[in-house]
Amino acid sequence: MRAEFQAELADLSGRLVAMADEVRDAMRRATTALLAPDAEIAEGVISGDAAVNELHKEVEEQVFALLARQAPVASDLRLVISALHMGADFERMGDLAKHVAKTARRRHPARAVPDELVSVIRDMANVADRLAGKIGSVLANPSATRAAELETDDDVMDELQRGLFVVLLGAAWKHGVEFAIDGALLGRFYERYADHAVNAGHHMYFIVTGEPLH
Amino acid sequence: MRAEFQAELADLSGRLVAMADEVRDAMRRATTALLAPDAEIAEGVISGDAAVNELHKEVEEQVFALLARQAPVASDLRLVISALHMGADFERMGDLAKHVAKTARRRHPARAVPDELVSVIRDMANVADRLAGKIGSVLANPSATRAAELETDDDVMDELQRGLFVVLLGAAWKHGVEFAIDGALLGRFYERYADHAVNAGHHMYFIVTGEPLH
Repeated sequence: MRAEFQAELADLSGRLVAMADEVRDAMRRATTALLAPDAEIAEGVISGDAAVNELHKEVEEQVFALLARQAPVASDLRLVISALHMGADFERMGDLAKHVAKTARRRHPARAVPDELVSVIRDMANVADRLAGKIGSVLANPSATRAAELETDDDVMDELQRGLFVVLLGAAWKHGVEFAIDGALLGRFYERYADHAVNAGHHMYFIVTGEPLH
Repeated sequence: MRAEFQAELADLSGRLVAMADEVRDAMRRATTALLAPDAEIAEGVISGDAAVNELHKEVEEQVFALLARQAPVASDLRLVISALHMGADFERMGDLAKHVAKTARRRHPARAVPDELVSVIRDMANVADRLAGKIGSVLANPSATRAAELETDDDVMDELQRGLFVVLLGAAWKHGVEFAIDGALLGRFYERYADHAVNAGHHMYFIVTGEPLH
């Protein structure tokens, strides 16, 4: 029973790693689609989100099967429930990559991001990418320290968000309301994406240490 | 065992009803704070979100306890896992009410919503309130029909969202970029809030029928 449980957990963890990889790749491509701009890449991200949702469904079904067959308790149970939460975080990260891609598509052939915003949006995308990469690697090689680091890694996102608004609301802004709204929403998508990676980091911290991070 | 399980489920359901009531009331007060505007009411919503988070923690702990002690299978297991998902939906709805209240607070003593947007924001708030009210009542008196209705009830939100953007992007808009961004984000907060109520409706549908809605 125990060996079987461990094998199923390894399998579940593999699916979560696959989800983390997928949503990292999705946001990378969404950023490329946004900044190039490239409508074909945007379409790929939008249609590709179904694969993330499929993986999420598999994670949910596996969690159900594990709970039903193995009736885990204590730390094993917490682990399985944490996996369920992480699956939901990754699913949402996929949605947010799709939102970025949809913004790119809506503006095509124009670029949704005016020159003045390219650098801050690229910085936000880089932070989001780093967090997605780290949670994937923490899943593959559990570490409480690295799981906890995600939260501080995310601090710079707030600064970038403020920087974004300085540009949007500055006297020099000449792109009108529509591009400003897109810029603000894009900032929010990257920020939320990073938040979910941080959440997943909390779950990994809990799995490794048995204690909540705060 | 069975009677005990049923009693615990009733208790869990009661907590979810309490969460639904809390987040409905929070969004109502946030809308009042926004449209009055009223900074004190806004503060109350912001600090009051802790109570929603506390209820969410209790739901999570109760789900853990139920899984560990009762090791439910089949439909009982699905019910317990659905309760966990609904708890997460309500927790997020509380966050979104807090976001609305924070927008109100940031602009005080000015009103974040210019005259031209009051009617569409009020309509969005009314839809959000109706959905929150319905999910609360479906939880208290389970009904597959009413749970499924939430999805169609939400359709009008997309129309309102479009109407909001017509005003924000219209030639007559004279409030500049900052109010436009606030308006767009507020629209998104109400829309996401309603989405989570719809999600919770899906979970209730599943609990009642044993089948997913789609």
